[in-house]
Amino acid sequence: MTYALAIHVEDGLVFCSDSRTSAGTDHINVYSKMHTFVCPGKRFFCLLSSGNLATTQAVLQRLRQDTAQPGRLSLWTVPTLVAAADYIGMISADIQRNQSSRDAASTVFEATFILGGQIQGEVPGIYLVYPQGNYIHESAEHPFLQVGEIKYGKPILDRVVHSALPLEKAGRCALVSMNSTIRSNLMVGAPIELLFYRNGSLEPGEYLNLADDDPFYRSVADSWSQGLAVAMDALPVFPWE
Amino acid sequence: MTYALAIHVEDGLVFCSDSRTSAGTDHINVYSKMHTFVCPGKRFFCLLSSGNLATTQAVLQRLRQDTAQPGRLSLWTVPTLVAAADYIGMISADIQRNQSSRDAASTVFEATFILGGQIQGEVPGIYLVYPQGNYIHESAEHPFLQVGEIKYGKPILDRVVHSALPLEKAGRCALVSMNSTIRSNLMVGAPIELLFYRNGSLEPGEYLNLADDDPFYRSVADSWSQGLAVAMDALPVFPWE
Repeated sequence: MTYALAIHVEDGLVFCSDSRTSAGTDHINVYSKMHTFVCPGKRFFCLLSSGNLATTQAVLQRLRQDTAQPGRLSLWTVPTLVAAADYIGMISADIQRNQSSRDAASTVFEATFILGGQIQGEVPGIYLVYPQGNYIHESAEHPFLQVGEIKYGKPILDRVVHSALPLEKAGRCALVSMNSTIRSNLMVGAPIELLFYRNGSLEPGEYLNLADDDPFYRSVADSWSQGLAVAMDALPVFPWE
Repeated sequence: MTYALAIHVEDGLVFCSDSRTSAGTDHINVYSKMHTFVCPGKRFFCLLSSGNLATTQAVLQRLRQDTAQPGRLSLWTVPTLVAAADYIGMISADIQRNQSSRDAASTVFEATFILGGQIQGEVPGIYLVYPQGNYIHESAEHPFLQVGEIKYGKPILDRVVHSALPLEKAGRCALVSMNSTIRSNLMVGAPIELLFYRNGSLEPGEYLNLADDDPFYRSVADSWSQGLAVAMDALPVFPWE
């Protein structure tokens, strides 16, 4: 299982992902699900991956190979962000079909991606690329996208995230959403990766890789628990109290 | 879809359920999912129902019929709360088998129940009765049980609920958990029913039936949103801020 999300606010983009992979409950590993493609000053992409690990690794390898071949369709040559989403969707669906053609069982080879970034001269944005290869983008009314185990961490995003949120505040909101998910589902786990992108910078911004016992991460989790307790105490009392 | 939960604290029990039923997305109705069986001064049961509506209605009807027949195994004659859970599990599994035997399609007749209450001379408790007819009870470490669309509303329960929580505070926590779920999933909807049971009373306590525009319910939802905003503002800032 995975939980990953991206938020698009006026100042830029926030990317956040867990690092737990599992094949059943007795084969747990740590793999980064956050992958960046940076051509400094020209284009910046961040790809968050979820689903079948063989598929996501094959997609990533293919994306890297393509960027190494000048003139080929790649993240260095796609004209727009939506063209990048389309290109990734095509590769992902292609790899899933190839894997299925070798399969004697009914294995699920599906993978889902969040792609975000900016190309010089274009506006930044985020896309969710489905296993079928199609995709959606965020909207001003719904400025975040999630993949994987999305439900535990969605209420806080629904209540707090809007386009005008300062970038760091959106980052804190992503951390809290991730922390709530990790507390409720063993299949989502640290380290947590958190990456900021500032509009127009065309390079990655601040990056954090937070272990479960990281002092800053613990202070955020503890502060949030205390804040919820205060909010709970401030709720209106029942008529008979 | 349904969301219902029960919390067991030292002072008593809290029951909370939504009222939305759906057959697909174009056939939405309102049905109460909270059912009480009260023999004042002797025994009190509250049953929260989720799953196939024909199954849950048939189970309820059978429970009512049995209580009307003196001497028969019924909620009036079961010796303990666990025996009540076993009896309901038996009836539910029985009705599902009967319905399946008539079925030409592959219809899902499953139903899940939360049973809570107290029998004179016994301690109160809550049970989750699975479609298979088996059941689990809460524990001191995990003093709540949920059915239906449980994920959106679980993080707040995980962080706040413990056995020593005052009864009304547990009730507010249940309301917030329900409100978060309703905001995130259209298939869970008002009116919300909230019932308190005080240990040893052997009769239902305070009861609220809250429409979406109920002023008290709105004040709880608004206060919670404000409390979360304050908690968010109080989070530790990132090292570079």
